[in-house]
Amino acid sequence: MNNITLKKLADELNMSPSTVSRALRDSHEISQETKDRVKALADKLDFQPNPHASSLRKNKSRTIAVVIPEIQNNFFSQVMNGVEEVARQKGYHVLIYLTHEDHKREEDILHLLRSGRVEGVMISVSNTTKNFEHIEACQKADLPLLFFDRVCENMEVPCVTTDDASAAFKATEHLIKSGCKNIVFLSMADSLSISCGRKTGYLKALSKYGFANKEKVIECGPDDETNRRKIQQVLQSEDRPDGIFAAVEKFAVNTYEVCRELDIKVPQHLKVISFSNLSAAALFNPPLSTIVQPAYDIGKESAAILFKIIDKKKLLSSEKRIVIPSHLVIRESTTSKQYAKPPVLFKQ
Amino acid sequence: MNNITLKKLADELNMSPSTVSRALRDSHEISQETKDRVKALADKLDFQPNPHASSLRKNKSRTIAVVIPEIQNNFFSQVMNGVEEVARQKGYHVLIYLTHEDHKREEDILHLLRSGRVEGVMISVSNTTKNFEHIEACQKADLPLLFFDRVCENMEVPCVTTDDASAAFKATEHLIKSGCKNIVFLSMADSLSISCGRKTGYLKALSKYGFANKEKVIECGPDDETNRRKIQQVLQSEDRPDGIFAAVEKFAVNTYEVCRELDIKVPQHLKVISFSNLSAAALFNPPLSTIVQPAYDIGKESAAILFKIIDKKKLLSSEKRIVIPSHLVIRESTTSKQYAKPPVLFKQ
Repeated sequence: MNNITLKKLADELNMSPSTVSRALRDSHEISQETKDRVKALADKLDFQPNPHASSLRKNKSRTIAVVIPEIQNNFFSQVMNGVEEVARQKGYHVLIYLTHEDHKREEDILHLLRSGRVEGVMISVSNTTKNFEHIEACQKADLPLLFFDRVCENMEVPCVTTDDASAAFKATEHLIKSGCKNIVFLSMADSLSISCGRKTGYLKALSKYGFANKEKVIECGPDDETNRRKIQQVLQSEDRPDGIFAAVEKFAVNTYEVCRELDIKVPQHLKVISFSNLSAAALFNPPLSTIVQPAYDIGKESAAILFKIIDKKKLLSSEKRIVIPSHLVIRESTTSKQYAKPPVLFKQ
Repeated sequence: MNNITLKKLADELNMSPSTVSRALRDSHEISQETKDRVKALADKLDFQPNPHASSLRKNKSRTIAVVIPEIQNNFFSQVMNGVEEVARQKGYHVLIYLTHEDHKREEDILHLLRSGRVEGVMISVSNTTKNFEHIEACQKADLPLLFFDRVCENMEVPCVTTDDASAAFKATEHLIKSGCKNIVFLSMADSLSISCGRKTGYLKALSKYGFANKEKVIECGPDDETNRRKIQQVLQSEDRPDGIFAAVEKFAVNTYEVCRELDIKVPQHLKVISFSNLSAAALFNPPLSTIVQPAYDIGKESAAILFKIIDKKKLLSSEKRIVIPSHLVIRESTTSKQYAKPPVLFKQ
């Protein structure tokens, strides 16, 4: 990299390397005149201290890690945007790690991070993560930790989430008020905190409006083809739904694809609502009603709390569990148009 | 972080720290028996070598940096996916930096990176970057560098791009063959390599089909409101276009928004095609014809080339300028339906 070392700078100035080093760190032991001379030459030669030497000395890498399931997802990319904003202001670097929803990869990543490469870790767990030993090991190693979005409820680790249960309740209630009597919930893996929260909200709304016996949860996953088959099956069943509530955007996209294929009209035959941070949802045919999560704010808030922990500031109890509300955006996919006769292609 | 140091490990084993260190690095000077004893205890105590000490010794951080304009963009998030895949296999860490299309931020980031924090940098320049001194400074400092997507043609730096000009030619040709006679190109800043390439392709197609005098380029930018105003203006002008070719997805979204507002029917009144990596483009109303860039492959290929440079392997001349083709996906927004009478709301 840059060839100018502290040693070369010292030789050029006819000073000892330790004097140069202290001058650059603005030590009170060094005179202003010397500091000025050192800094002028350092600027001129574009000298920069070796970050590894400085990290070793201070045991500080000025780096945090963000561990997320995937990046091709509007929610997580907006979170990254918020994290980066706060880290930049604080003069920190951000490492990004993708687990691709794989428990083993997540373990390997956290194992690597325990060695002190970073000063803190923000994580949203993968949907195949069923035990948390790898995260507990980080905790034992005193590595500052924070969960966001997908958390582990049982661990004493600060977390930043949205109000999944209450947002899901409102979404389900909105479907019911738009005339739906048979609502299917397309969920993620049950082990995920957000999946549980969203399911709880769905069930609570069904129960409040007298549909407790109409509960129908279909677990979808990363594979589009499998999801479409499951959705197709339920939409062609005898007891076919008139509303679909998708736990994540991907499943709403799969639903729209199936509806196009089977010529099911949204919202006339089926109403659809989904958690989604896709701004283009308004351009869908028909425009998709969404529950929009405060992704950018979750990223900013998470980074701010993580830096508090890194700086060894005491967290207020309100800062240990931060919940930032989502909001509903109602569009055509759930409006209560006249209910048309279902097309003939449904299986009897 | 982890409290187990090399020193503690050595004390526990009654060996010198240097013996323990050499045993862990599998040195031939150490007997197998000693290695086994050291490794067994290191595993038991979850010892991991200090990465900063090891980076300082080897002058290797096992980290690369990716500098991109933004992450809330399907193209760049798919690129990141490809980069991460290759880096993980190679045992490298990935730092992510966002310039938010700001030249000054880009300069600051590259200044930081020159200090040796990373072994190599991949960059897609911001659309406000008009000089390249900050990148030349990295080059002088012998920092391995690679451009992807948005490159600086005049620098001797390897780059990985798509065939912007030829893909833009095909897109424009497709509009002409679908009946368009008056095609507007919504471009990015002229200083961007990809913008030039795409404009070149657009002009070449106009010229080939006898529309050289119908050239109309509108420069759009990051602000949605400004873009919509510009698009609205041209769509309400006397010489209004019957085709729009958007250089990036964002401008196609702006176009759709304006069409909804003005009740302009796509594709009857206006045909629209755009560079875009949004899979949900198929669900738009109407489904949007797109030029899909090989984003994931650009990410993988870029990382692979960067690692070759880091490992001081000689690049073949074919590896210095890699071009991976994009492909057209034709959907309803450009099909040649019967041309309907334009709505009355157009200004005369």
